[in-house]
Amino acid sequence: MTISQVRTSRSAQLPAPDGTLGHVDIGSVVLENGAVLPNVTVALQRWGELSPARDNVVLALHALTGDSHATGPAGGPDGHPTAGWWDGLIGPGAVIDTNEWCVISTNVLGGCRGTTGPSSTAPDGKAWGSRFPVITIRDQVEVERILLERIGIERVASVAGGSMGGARALEWQVSHPDRVGSSLVLAADARTTAYQIGYQGTQIQAITADPDWLGGDYYGTGRAPDAGLGIARRFAHLSYRGEAELDDRFANNAQEPEDPAAGGRFAVQSYLDHQAGKLLGRFDAGSYVTLTQSLNLHDVGRGRGGVDAALGACPVPTVVAAIDSDQLYPLHTLGKIADDLPNCRGLQVINSPFGHDAFLIEADAVVALMRETMDLARASRG
Amino acid sequence: MTISQVRTSRSAQLPAPDGTLGHVDIGSVVLENGAVLPNVTVALQRWGELSPARDNVVLALHALTGDSHATGPAGGPDGHPTAGWWDGLIGPGAVIDTNEWCVISTNVLGGCRGTTGPSSTAPDGKAWGSRFPVITIRDQVEVERILLERIGIERVASVAGGSMGGARALEWQVSHPDRVGSSLVLAADARTTAYQIGYQGTQIQAITADPDWLGGDYYGTGRAPDAGLGIARRFAHLSYRGEAELDDRFANNAQEPEDPAAGGRFAVQSYLDHQAGKLLGRFDAGSYVTLTQSLNLHDVGRGRGGVDAALGACPVPTVVAAIDSDQLYPLHTLGKIADDLPNCRGLQVINSPFGHDAFLIEADAVVALMRETMDLARASRG
Repeated sequence: MTISQVRTSRSAQLPAPDGTLGHVDIGSVVLENGAVLPNVTVALQRWGELSPARDNVVLALHALTGDSHATGPAGGPDGHPTAGWWDGLIGPGAVIDTNEWCVISTNVLGGCRGTTGPSSTAPDGKAWGSRFPVITIRDQVEVERILLERIGIERVASVAGGSMGGARALEWQVSHPDRVGSSLVLAADARTTAYQIGYQGTQIQAITADPDWLGGDYYGTGRAPDAGLGIARRFAHLSYRGEAELDDRFANNAQEPEDPAAGGRFAVQSYLDHQAGKLLGRFDAGSYVTLTQSLNLHDVGRGRGGVDAALGACPVPTVVAAIDSDQLYPLHTLGKIADDLPNCRGLQVINSPFGHDAFLIEADAVVALMRETMDLARASRG
Repeated sequence: MTISQVRTSRSAQLPAPDGTLGHVDIGSVVLENGAVLPNVTVALQRWGELSPARDNVVLALHALTGDSHATGPAGGPDGHPTAGWWDGLIGPGAVIDTNEWCVISTNVLGGCRGTTGPSSTAPDGKAWGSRFPVITIRDQVEVERILLERIGIERVASVAGGSMGGARALEWQVSHPDRVGSSLVLAADARTTAYQIGYQGTQIQAITADPDWLGGDYYGTGRAPDAGLGIARRFAHLSYRGEAELDDRFANNAQEPEDPAAGGRFAVQSYLDHQAGKLLGRFDAGSYVTLTQSLNLHDVGRGRGGVDAALGACPVPTVVAAIDSDQLYPLHTLGKIADDLPNCRGLQVINSPFGHDAFLIEADAVVALMRETMDLARASRG
């Protein structure tokens, strides 16, 4: 699919506190590699009022295919296709109580839900496509820092995220320890592992090998690398789930009345087809490639003397949690973060059959972690 | 690549006992689904003399992309591109001592190294291609049973294999408990799990989505779905290795002098490219699809009242072993086999960082398991 460019606004104002989608132009951004990306727009949503001291902002950071819709129903007034990815955690009386906190969630740089990405229009009036630069998690944080400055926020009470959102949270606190009150890093790592790079890099190859990729310049052609993106998503989805949980649900059952021995599908294949189809309906392949590459390049130690030094120099009070069935971010990756950060009480482990996706599914466990994170934010707020 | 059809022989004779590659025509085979596959040829190799009582045959069963070359050097007289997959385990004085045992290894039905498969010539003089039938692990065993009967062997002293070879060993002993003296089942399962089906099924999709797949009829066109097979192999290879081992070797290092931030590769991507390239040079995509589908259909319980009943009724003395870092065949899959088989002393676990591939790498551990298997074979031989 091709995502149409969203309307942008030049006002550096927070959108309404009810989750209304807003857009802020932040102008040119100097990327980590020195390149300059012009005319950057950031899509964002907000829940809760900003305190007079502007010191109660909680940044909720989405994962690879998420967006700014951290909470709210599917098909609501803004027409968002899915329910908020941390629905239930944000609101009046929720663990991130919007009577106390002002929650802000942006769509990440390189995304396709309102923030500038490969499907956005470049200054020449055509889609960026293959011309969109390589970006990093650090660039994504830099865009958020600029955005917050434009709306008068110098410091956030807390950053919180899982998966790519967790990588962003960690990069935030390492890049700007003086601007972060507390942090929740969930199911992420300090630098990408070889397995992740191999797995994610091969997903990129599946997309770029699709003849409808057209070198990344398929926008406006009526074509899109749906087959390649679908294959990437099926593999990705498998890496997000628990092996035993999948087998409990699907075993080697046929997708009745289809017969796998005669070209039909197994039930788990139908499930993966469904997952791939859902993503195709809401996500752009160019953003998938750009953001996956930003994940592959994730390394909080780059240019900072390595991971140990970078984390060791970061005093932000941090809650770090892993999922015991997570094959993509095994315990040792998060244990490393917990060990290296001087202000972390140690690795917390969520016991769950759901694999990596438990960061979106295990509400009780995530609420408990978030409660701790907000307590740390409150203490840090003073 | 396209694998050229091998020369076949009508003599039902064992090839020379020095590993010389031989071919035996076994005529038509009735498949599990009732279809008839005509003119089946089986490629095989043998090491060691057949005893006068014809009771000393050990069947060494290869995995997905293996073949009959169980032992012997790469680039030897038969021009085989790789060293034997169980080199060191078979020979005079080795754990499968060819002074005592006659080792036979066939290329599996559906393969591309001499046994009839999609790249073979059908009766009409054209490659089977898309007309090659869906086959099962059970069909592969049936082909070997017919072959052995043609050469006068009614019973084997032992069957042994890892991965798809382990699935074949288990299917052998369940299909023909009266024809198997002992069995080694390594890194395999009794029926495919949902995760395996999803992972393997998506590999098939990566191949069949390649425009050079041509619906499976690319033979003789000068085209072949190399990109798709390469993507499938990269994912497969990742599932065969240990997450921590890969990270110890490659971490997030660049493939110097390439720069991943400027379109270059990480070291692990170069490694995966190399692994994919090696497979493309020696394996046919049609066989990869056919054999992967046979793995997806693997279920020793089909038509036998389920796995528990099928294994419970199989008295063959069996050694069952799992690898602790194997993400594709986790311990519970092999524990299930060990629990259900009445003549198994329990699950044995190979401690190894190498993941699934440990069944090819951890020579000392495999030798110990094989020694036990041969002891059981000797006892069973009486």
